[in-house]
Amino acid sequence: MTAAKARKNKPASPNTRPTQPALPVPPVAAWPAGFASGAAAAGLKAPGRLDVAVLVADQAVPAAAMFTTNLVQAAPVLVSKEHLKKGRGLVRAVVVNAGNANACTGQQGLRDAREMCQQVARFVRCPIEQVLVASTGVIGRKMAMPKVRKGIAAALKSLGTTQDHFAAFSQAICTTDRWRKVASSTLTLAGGPVQITGTTKGAGMISPNMATTLAFLATDAKLGAAALKQSLQQAIAASYNRAMVDGHQSTNDFAVLLASGSSGVKVSGTAAHDEFESALSTVCLDLASQIVRDGEGATKRMEIVVTGAKSDQIADGIARTIAMSALVRTAIFGNDPNWGRIVSAVGYAPGVKDIRKLRCKIQDVLVYRDGTPTDFNAADLSNAMKSEQVLIEVELGEGHGEGFLQASDLTYEYVRINAEYTT
Amino acid sequence: MTAAKARKNKPASPNTRPTQPALPVPPVAAWPAGFASGAAAAGLKAPGRLDVAVLVADQAVPAAAMFTTNLVQAAPVLVSKEHLKKGRGLVRAVVVNAGNANACTGQQGLRDAREMCQQVARFVRCPIEQVLVASTGVIGRKMAMPKVRKGIAAALKSLGTTQDHFAAFSQAICTTDRWRKVASSTLTLAGGPVQITGTTKGAGMISPNMATTLAFLATDAKLGAAALKQSLQQAIAASYNRAMVDGHQSTNDFAVLLASGSSGVKVSGTAAHDEFESALSTVCLDLASQIVRDGEGATKRMEIVVTGAKSDQIADGIARTIAMSALVRTAIFGNDPNWGRIVSAVGYAPGVKDIRKLRCKIQDVLVYRDGTPTDFNAADLSNAMKSEQVLIEVELGEGHGEGFLQASDLTYEYVRINAEYTT
Repeated sequence: MTAAKARKNKPASPNTRPTQPALPVPPVAAWPAGFASGAAAAGLKAPGRLDVAVLVADQAVPAAAMFTTNLVQAAPVLVSKEHLKKGRGLVRAVVVNAGNANACTGQQGLRDAREMCQQVARFVRCPIEQVLVASTGVIGRKMAMPKVRKGIAAALKSLGTTQDHFAAFSQAICTTDRWRKVASSTLTLAGGPVQITGTTKGAGMISPNMATTLAFLATDAKLGAAALKQSLQQAIAASYNRAMVDGHQSTNDFAVLLASGSSGVKVSGTAAHDEFESALSTVCLDLASQIVRDGEGATKRMEIVVTGAKSDQIADGIARTIAMSALVRTAIFGNDPNWGRIVSAVGYAPGVKDIRKLRCKIQDVLVYRDGTPTDFNAADLSNAMKSEQVLIEVELGEGHGEGFLQASDLTYEYVRINAEYTT
Repeated sequence: MTAAKARKNKPASPNTRPTQPALPVPPVAAWPAGFASGAAAAGLKAPGRLDVAVLVADQAVPAAAMFTTNLVQAAPVLVSKEHLKKGRGLVRAVVVNAGNANACTGQQGLRDAREMCQQVARFVRCPIEQVLVASTGVIGRKMAMPKVRKGIAAALKSLGTTQDHFAAFSQAICTTDRWRKVASSTLTLAGGPVQITGTTKGAGMISPNMATTLAFLATDAKLGAAALKQSLQQAIAASYNRAMVDGHQSTNDFAVLLASGSSGVKVSGTAAHDEFESALSTVCLDLASQIVRDGEGATKRMEIVVTGAKSDQIADGIARTIAMSALVRTAIFGNDPNWGRIVSAVGYAPGVKDIRKLRCKIQDVLVYRDGTPTDFNAADLSNAMKSEQVLIEVELGEGHGEGFLQASDLTYEYVRINAEYTT
């Protein structure tokens, strides 16, 4: 999927975000037919907060997953990879906890991750390799397994298919998130309507490289594991891998897509697959946008669009270089139309060879071309930047390469959260 | 020069830094014999603040310079490159202003930069190509040439060789710096003592790639332009290119080294060149450390030492990846021994293939080995981190590659400075 397509798939109104840390009510959604979920408060987060959850399919179903590319991989990542391979892409359940990443925990961590799968496998009566596991939270702390065991048991006991069950699942996976994140889409294929629903978590250690953070996606459409894998890879490439909070790649990234087939509608033929992939991308882009909007301390979401580069890869590199600049990110926070920081970031982005035709726009206002600034009105533009979404466009004039990335601004609150967070 | 050598060259006590924004009195220093300087308040910065300066050699002397590798290059960078080439490495004077970068200013910017050189050339009676020019400040604003002309005239009128003249020069080049930055070294060669003295400016848009920020270095030793170039490149590689405030590469970086030969002491033979290069590196590392300590909003200087990588290049990449992580930088600000953020940054650094033997130390305390944390005392270590200098060591156990980088922490004050700075 191209950047242009990715943008096209952008949710219609990403401008609505609460300024208070209260949890807004997300659009009504429940898991598609064929799935149940449960959640419990195991005491891994603050007392009483949901922190363990299970997603269970009525039977073993085709699934695809993507994992962090960080070389430091948490135990649940290693175990889920192993299970997915052994189970040949058939998955019955996913168990997840927040509050402890089970990363850098050695052999004991692997044993704990396997035990979590085993407990679910016993309950739903399936082979252990049909259970995947995901964790998020502090790195390097042993899992409090007595709590985890009780939590999983309670979550399994609470299994159900209502909106409340879905909401509890999406709440349980949160860490520093200010609100739970869900998205859903219904598309009508030749055989009838199918649903795609997902939930994800933020809000820090977010960098675009192959399934950032945790994402749980489910559909009642009928697809094989191979088709699911292709669709998931395309959707993640167009969404999660173009979303950035702080540019730090996590050890626990995990995205999974399960297809129950309960709708009875088979996704067959190129057109149907394209439609499915497009709807999945929309859901993923919605979720990724929510992560960026709720990025740690974020007050705004930057949309960085690069065109006219020699290749898509170079365009993506430029977008990332701009998004990674602390000077750009603080300027956006300060409503400062500081195009000099943007233009100079392009000047050291990898692969850029010629910036003589460089043009830069902020909020649709041309601010730079022909090596000099335009005589735009800085006060007006600063006012226009007092928005929850700031559009930065860079045109290289060198070719047809396009890139897109969305990123959070850098604020006092980001520093507070991450300087006061104690290991 | 290897990273280990660079560390060896580190100034002895970099721990003393003021917490107040007052300007501490730097060690007594003046330009070496053969140089005079002058400074003036032209009104480019706040009224009354020194912002234009000239450094003039008694005659045209051999010089070497390095420039930003950013593709977006300010007019003074382009003009100085041109002059250095035309003048075949002979330089009579350098003119510099702060308060306006003269970057992204098109043909007018080039004309202004040339005019600045011309004015100095006329005064000291030398060809224009023997005058270099450097600027620092806001990007994309036309130079207020009437003010600049008056400023240069006043600076030239004030030329002198005292400590006060040197101090005024080092003050004039500052922008957001909290104190002026100077360093000096005297070494005794076979022919007698020679002096190397330098001054530099911070405090933002600092990223290690080939002469970051502005640096003016002068010696009374006798060397040719080729030898100066080699020494400067080595010294910058070991110092400035291993110093980072915010990872944003500037459009105006410029480092120059002038050799008056006034001591009458010729640097000849490998041993003498090595000694000279080592002393120059010490001066540059001292200056670079001051930039990091005075990084925008910085409360601390991180020293990141990487050993045991497959190559020096990979080790450097690891050090940069750690230094670029906003999560690591905020943890250091918060005295948080959050080794998980350091270890996970190693996991996505370019070229790293195997992290199974990874060991990590913070302030000499081993916190991670064999894929798991040690049982170090977090409270004690946090206390040990309440220092102006925090040492992070990473050992890969894969080879003999070494890397070193020093970087500022990320604080509320950085966000304030850069969100409130208005273009």
